[in-house]
Amino acid sequence: MAVNLSAPAANELKLINGIRLSTASAGIKKPGRQDVVLIELAPGSHTAAVYTRNAFCAAPVLIAREHQAQTATRFLLINSGNANAGTGDAGLIDAKACCQAVAEQGDCHAAAVLPFSTGVIGQPLPVEKITSVLPEAFTQLKADNWFAAAHAIMTTDTIAKARSVELSLNGQQITLTGIAKGSGMIRPDMATMLSYIATDAAISPSILQKILEVSMEQSFNSITVDGDTSTNDACILIATGKAGNSVIDDMDSADAHQFIEALNNLSRFLAQAIVRDGEGATKFISIDVQQGTDEDECKQVAYTIAHSPLVKTALFASDPNWGRILAAVGRSGLPNLDLSKIAIYLDDVCIVDGGQPATDYTEEKGQQVMSQSEITIKVKLGRGGVSKTVWTCDFSYDYVKINAEYRT
Amino acid sequence: MAVNLSAPAANELKLINGIRLSTASAGIKKPGRQDVVLIELAPGSHTAAVYTRNAFCAAPVLIAREHQAQTATRFLLINSGNANAGTGDAGLIDAKACCQAVAEQGDCHAAAVLPFSTGVIGQPLPVEKITSVLPEAFTQLKADNWFAAAHAIMTTDTIAKARSVELSLNGQQITLTGIAKGSGMIRPDMATMLSYIATDAAISPSILQKILEVSMEQSFNSITVDGDTSTNDACILIATGKAGNSVIDDMDSADAHQFIEALNNLSRFLAQAIVRDGEGATKFISIDVQQGTDEDECKQVAYTIAHSPLVKTALFASDPNWGRILAAVGRSGLPNLDLSKIAIYLDDVCIVDGGQPATDYTEEKGQQVMSQSEITIKVKLGRGGVSKTVWTCDFSYDYVKINAEYRT
Repeated sequence: MAVNLSAPAANELKLINGIRLSTASAGIKKPGRQDVVLIELAPGSHTAAVYTRNAFCAAPVLIAREHQAQTATRFLLINSGNANAGTGDAGLIDAKACCQAVAEQGDCHAAAVLPFSTGVIGQPLPVEKITSVLPEAFTQLKADNWFAAAHAIMTTDTIAKARSVELSLNGQQITLTGIAKGSGMIRPDMATMLSYIATDAAISPSILQKILEVSMEQSFNSITVDGDTSTNDACILIATGKAGNSVIDDMDSADAHQFIEALNNLSRFLAQAIVRDGEGATKFISIDVQQGTDEDECKQVAYTIAHSPLVKTALFASDPNWGRILAAVGRSGLPNLDLSKIAIYLDDVCIVDGGQPATDYTEEKGQQVMSQSEITIKVKLGRGGVSKTVWTCDFSYDYVKINAEYRT
Repeated sequence: MAVNLSAPAANELKLINGIRLSTASAGIKKPGRQDVVLIELAPGSHTAAVYTRNAFCAAPVLIAREHQAQTATRFLLINSGNANAGTGDAGLIDAKACCQAVAEQGDCHAAAVLPFSTGVIGQPLPVEKITSVLPEAFTQLKADNWFAAAHAIMTTDTIAKARSVELSLNGQQITLTGIAKGSGMIRPDMATMLSYIATDAAISPSILQKILEVSMEQSFNSITVDGDTSTNDACILIATGKAGNSVIDDMDSADAHQFIEALNNLSRFLAQAIVRDGEGATKFISIDVQQGTDEDECKQVAYTIAHSPLVKTALFASDPNWGRILAAVGRSGLPNLDLSKIAIYLDDVCIVDGGQPATDYTEEKGQQVMSQSEITIKVKLGRGGVSKTVWTCDFSYDYVKINAEYRT
């Protein structure tokens, strides 16, 4: 059960001029399920990407990174049900074979195809199943298939994640549409999971990657479900340049700022949607660490809280057992932490002030906040002016159930 | 259900000349339960201690550390059911009041009393309940109360942890007896939880602390249940000097080596007992990281695996989903990790060799190991000659249940 998250309506997702998509059913894990997505990019599109930093990154990540560096991208091929990770050299050959098959039917170089896989780790990719549905996938390419694509990339997700955002740049309408998948093995160390965002804006390739990285830091790189960085994470930003706006080519321009704000809006929604649909999640938690000396130390405290199984199970139980939050702050490893300056809040309820239990705190006040489906844990470190928020979910019986039964 | 761990028999625990203990029922959390332990040290005993590194360490930890530095210890006062942590200045006053009450009845200085508390964080210590049972506790002091003490310090533990070890130094019989408690919030950053070990050996105070620290590193500092370092961890080693051996005063002497080996034997048993009785544990896991350049990087890899909720739930499910182990190694953050040199084993079954899936691996072989109640995950890094083993348990429904319902 995702926390306060509804599936998008098909008609809420805006088309992006220059992008066509299709889905197909290759029977990779479950027969009959749509598990392959093909995305076609119009010539002239630019693409930026961030990939997992897991050293054991999957074969498709290695190939996508290599291909993207070689030539302009024309197709993305995505499959769910099998991650093609931990598959060694054979996995690289399989990922390339899929790209080659797309290239032959799409009349482009194999390097113009980026492969993506998500699902079980350590099993050979069923290449023939995938390539056999490509003719159908090419036939079905349509601009209004974002909704279907959002569903086809799901694994343990219970709800599809997708959104469109519009903005106007000097009177020119710009549209962004993005989809994402992810529910477990979520602790981005760069981007996480799979996310595909496209815009019709004209953006110079020289700043497209920078724009993506800035936005990722505020969205996908600020969430965690279980602390496990996936082997297959990737986020792709496509700019087709069909909107007719003046090319955005300066990070410091007003247009770039407006675009980044819209992109943040979209990517933060998708990132939070992944947490709301985190495996077994019953609550959506914002952890807001303030008054740090730099962003790194704020993140360190925030992630220590966010990964604490004891904090997460207390949140699940709606138990204001705030000692567990305090213990997590205490073990987060910040040098020279001055306890007498620390304050901790559940929403607006102060539980610790100046390192001491807050005098007006009552169990009832804490209980009231903990019973909510959305909770903000705020920590003031009292040692600087930097803040950082990360988002996570609670830890329930269902997380164990989902992950104990994943392959059965 | 603890994993392959039996409660000690009362008569297996050897008396330590110079140590008397008693337990009492103060009704701190559950009426009728023995929840207070008093330990008396004969004059002339030396004491070494290691405490939690959690910055939010509990009031009794602060007071014990202060008292221990001031004068020779004569009494340890331990309560379960309340951690006296997150209690601010009031907690310090409460801990001191308990020491003062012991000092008055024990005819010593308050600083000769070390206080220890374990249980719920953030609730005021019921000082009067504790001090009211002290007269009885003094009356009941006996040398053969180790068994009762091991039970009285338990919280979510399902089985008492205690053992005795004997050795002979130049024909002189030496005895060590130790008890420990702990089941959740277990990820030592120094020592963890509460453990009290006493010996009748004569050991110079100048090396007693060093001996304890060496042994802790091989035992309590090598275990984790949930990655949460407690606010109250403490391990105390007492040497009464009553055995009549020549004083051990050189870390490099044969006597010191023999003693440390015996102490390691005892402390490793107690540490592993805590993991075997980890909250919700159904399996006991050894994670053996080899061929590292130093111990720190071996620990980093081992703890990343040990804390991965995905690895822990796969272990619970007996699912040889080894991709999760591989993903954990990959995200452990070691610089310049050469995947082509990495090998991973489940017991003796090779799953990854030279960074590739092992050619002779079969799901059946993996399944067989994963179905065992004791499993060794072995990782060869191929970059040095250092090894490190840490011990942990799996992650079950019951971990969530125990921690969701802890305060109810």
